[in-house]
Amino acid sequence: MQRANESASASASASASADKFEEEVGRVMEQARELHESGASLLWKISNEEQSLRQKAISLESSIRRVRSSINSLLEEDLQRASSILTDGEAAAFLPAKAQGRFLRMFLGPINVRASRKEVQLKVKEEYNSYRDRTAFLFLLFPLTLLILKSWIWEGCLPAFPVQLYEAWLLFLYTGLAMRENILRANGSDIRPWWIYHHYCAMLMALVSLTWEIKRQPNCAQKQRGVELFLQWAMMQGVAMLLQNRYQRQRLYTRIALGKANRMDVVWGETSGVDGQLWVLCPILFVMQGFEAYVGLLLLKTAFVGVVTEWQVICCGILLVLMAVGNFINTIQTLMTKSRF
Amino acid sequence: MQRANESASASASASASADKFEEEVGRVMEQARELHESGASLLWKISNEEQSLRQKAISLESSIRRVRSSINSLLEEDLQRASSILTDGEAAAFLPAKAQGRFLRMFLGPINVRASRKEVQLKVKEEYNSYRDRTAFLFLLFPLTLLILKSWIWEGCLPAFPVQLYEAWLLFLYTGLAMRENILRANGSDIRPWWIYHHYCAMLMALVSLTWEIKRQPNCAQKQRGVELFLQWAMMQGVAMLLQNRYQRQRLYTRIALGKANRMDVVWGETSGVDGQLWVLCPILFVMQGFEAYVGLLLLKTAFVGVVTEWQVICCGILLVLMAVGNFINTIQTLMTKSRF
Ligand SMILES: CC(C)(COP(=O)(O)OP(=O)(O)OC[C@H]1O[C@@H](n2cnc3c(N)ncnc32)[C@H](O)[C@@H]1OP(=O)(O)O)[C@@H](O)C(=O)NCCC(=O)NCCS
Ligand SMILES: CC(C)(COP(=O)(O)OP(=O)(O)OC[C@H]1O[C@@H](n2cnc3c(N)ncnc32)[C@H](O)[C@@H]1OP(=O)(O)O)[C@@H](O)C(=O)NCCC(=O)NCCS
Repeated sequence: MQRANESASASASASASADKFEEEVGRVMEQARELHESGASLLWKISNEEQSLRQKAISLESSIRRVRSSINSLLEEDLQRASSILTDGEAAAFLPAKAQGRFLRMFLGPINVRASRKEVQLKVKEEYNSYRDRTAFLFLLFPLTLLILKSWIWEGCLPAFPVQLYEAWLLFLYTGLAMRENILRANGSDIRPWWIYHHYCAMLMALVSLTWEIKRQPNCAQKQRGVELFLQWAMMQGVAMLLQNRYQRQRLYTRIALGKANRMDVVWGETSGVDGQLWVLCPILFVMQGFEAYVGLLLLKTAFVGVVTEWQVICCGILLVLMAVGNFINTIQTLMTKSRF
Repeated sequence: MQRANESASASASASASADKFEEEVGRVMEQARELHESGASLLWKISNEEQSLRQKAISLESSIRRVRSSINSLLEEDLQRASSILTDGEAAAFLPAKAQGRFLRMFLGPINVRASRKEVQLKVKEEYNSYRDRTAFLFLLFPLTLLILKSWIWEGCLPAFPVQLYEAWLLFLYTGLAMRENILRANGSDIRPWWIYHHYCAMLMALVSLTWEIKRQPNCAQKQRGVELFLQWAMMQGVAMLLQNRYQRQRLYTRIALGKANRMDVVWGETSGVDGQLWVLCPILFVMQGFEAYVGLLLLKTAFVGVVTEWQVICCGILLVLMAVGNFINTIQTLMTKSRF
């Protein structure tokens, strides 16, 4: 009797708890439906409003262009201000994106790498700077270690593996830099296209140097002259990168600070007070670029005199000279643009 | 007198047009300000609403988890449906993103690669499939050409340059695939992590093989045995990729069609009618995986017997065996999951 009672009450409580669960599942289902619908309607609303802002932004951009072509210089400044409100303000998110370069599409497919909010864009930029900082140290340390070990332990003869490791790291690094710079460009940075092409050249060089056979004894001091020069140049580039980063980071912070204080009322120019640094940086950059061209020419010379006759040496030589010349021209052009303000 | 008149009227009309321009610039300025403000307010509104939907989505997700842990099997199906409304519907955009893997962060920095709208996500997926189609052909053609030229023109001895070009292409290709798969994952694809790791291994192998010295005469037929096997395997992989693509594309289309017809009322399972193809595909895949392991072991053997003693050969051998085993295990697991439906 007692047993029967027990089992009855057990089954009653089981069915009560089943009811409870059914209710709960029903509620969860209801919530999921609702959420799906509010999600869909929000996304729809957003895309409509975005569409209308996008059209307004495009038409405003074209009237700015039209008025600019037929205006006198007094009003020019006002117009410039209007244009910078449009392109540096929150409305910038609704201007058509700069076409995302082929490079990114090749690796990533058709995804959108543009951040719509300014703060996110700034965060991307800051992260790029700190990435460069981290790598600049390695840029200094890696070749330095190789060169030190070479004369202390390896008796003047670099073994292949560590050098190839270094070259693989360079390839990885330059690919990352090129991608990040493409992303910055898609997010409205004014970075000159050359600095990106420069990293494509550097990627190619790293790839080519990977296939470059590292010669052994005998006589390796002579055969490895090219590699040694390359490592020395890489070290100097580490120093230049550190200086350049310092300058560019300060420049960014000044711009953020200005932006916060009175964002739309400064025409973005060199009101940023880091001009002094530029005049210290540039001579160093020029020396570097000269050394880069020198290393390139030396490689070409070793190839033609006939000590080393691999195509890789010729290819790296040409790339180095090309990069040196391009860097020089673009640094000069940047300075000329700045001095016009 | 007439001249004075003329110049007066000219200056009058000049000042009238200056007025007109001033007005126009003023209007443009006004519009820019307005647009900036509506842009800012829209972005602010969006981020608020998104925030609230995000919280709701998270809490719903956790109640689904809670209820699931204490439920009987009858209600299970309903709950599954609620869960798929949440994760496959428009609300999915508001669930916290799967952490974007280290791989993407390494190359791209902290940008968001997630598309919020379903259609964009599907577009990304389709583009991935067509990218794989395009490369599968090259995958077949490239090594085939090398092998044909080898026996017809190069007299049994592969020259270094074309092989290195091919290896560089492989590196580029696998990097692209790995990135795209990471992006798909961030966009909610259920791709097993192994298929991505598999591409990391393949990247590493391509990189290592780039540093691999291609031996010349004399006796190159024997020394190049490893490269030859590798090329043969690559060709077979091209065939497998084509078949796999065909299957996966049909699977995607079926899912899109189902989605359009009655999206939320099917539990995403293998109701897609391409199961038949899977049973044709799998034996081919197993043969491929067997051959992959065989090539790997053969490389290891040549390394230990002592014909070629470079570390690159050992490394590629180990990687190939590892990939073969991993692919096999994961294919089996996929089949087991499917047969449970
Ligand atoms: C000359 C130099 C210092 C000028 O820097 P700058 O004052 O920032 O130049 P700009 O005003 O033209 O910069 C415009 C944009 O491009 C970016 N930029 C400029 N040079 C860059 C470079 N080399 N790499 C990446 N981004 C760069 C700036 O950060 C800025 O971005 P933003 O619009 O998002 O703020 C810089 O271009 C430089 O260091 N160049 C030399 C590099 C070199 O030769 N390296 C190799 C040495 S062998
Ligand atoms: C076995 C196999 C055909 C199953 O494919 P499937 O039915 O799509 O598998 P699943 O249902 O688990 O797929 C889940 C998701 O992963 C994706 N996926 C599965 N295998 C994939 C692969 N190898 N590469 C990329 N994506 C893959 C699917 O497209 C699907 O994506 P979605 O959620 O966005 O729709 C497939 O995994 C495969 O081809 N594997 C063998 C690969 C191989 O061994 N290649 C080398 C040969 S040597």
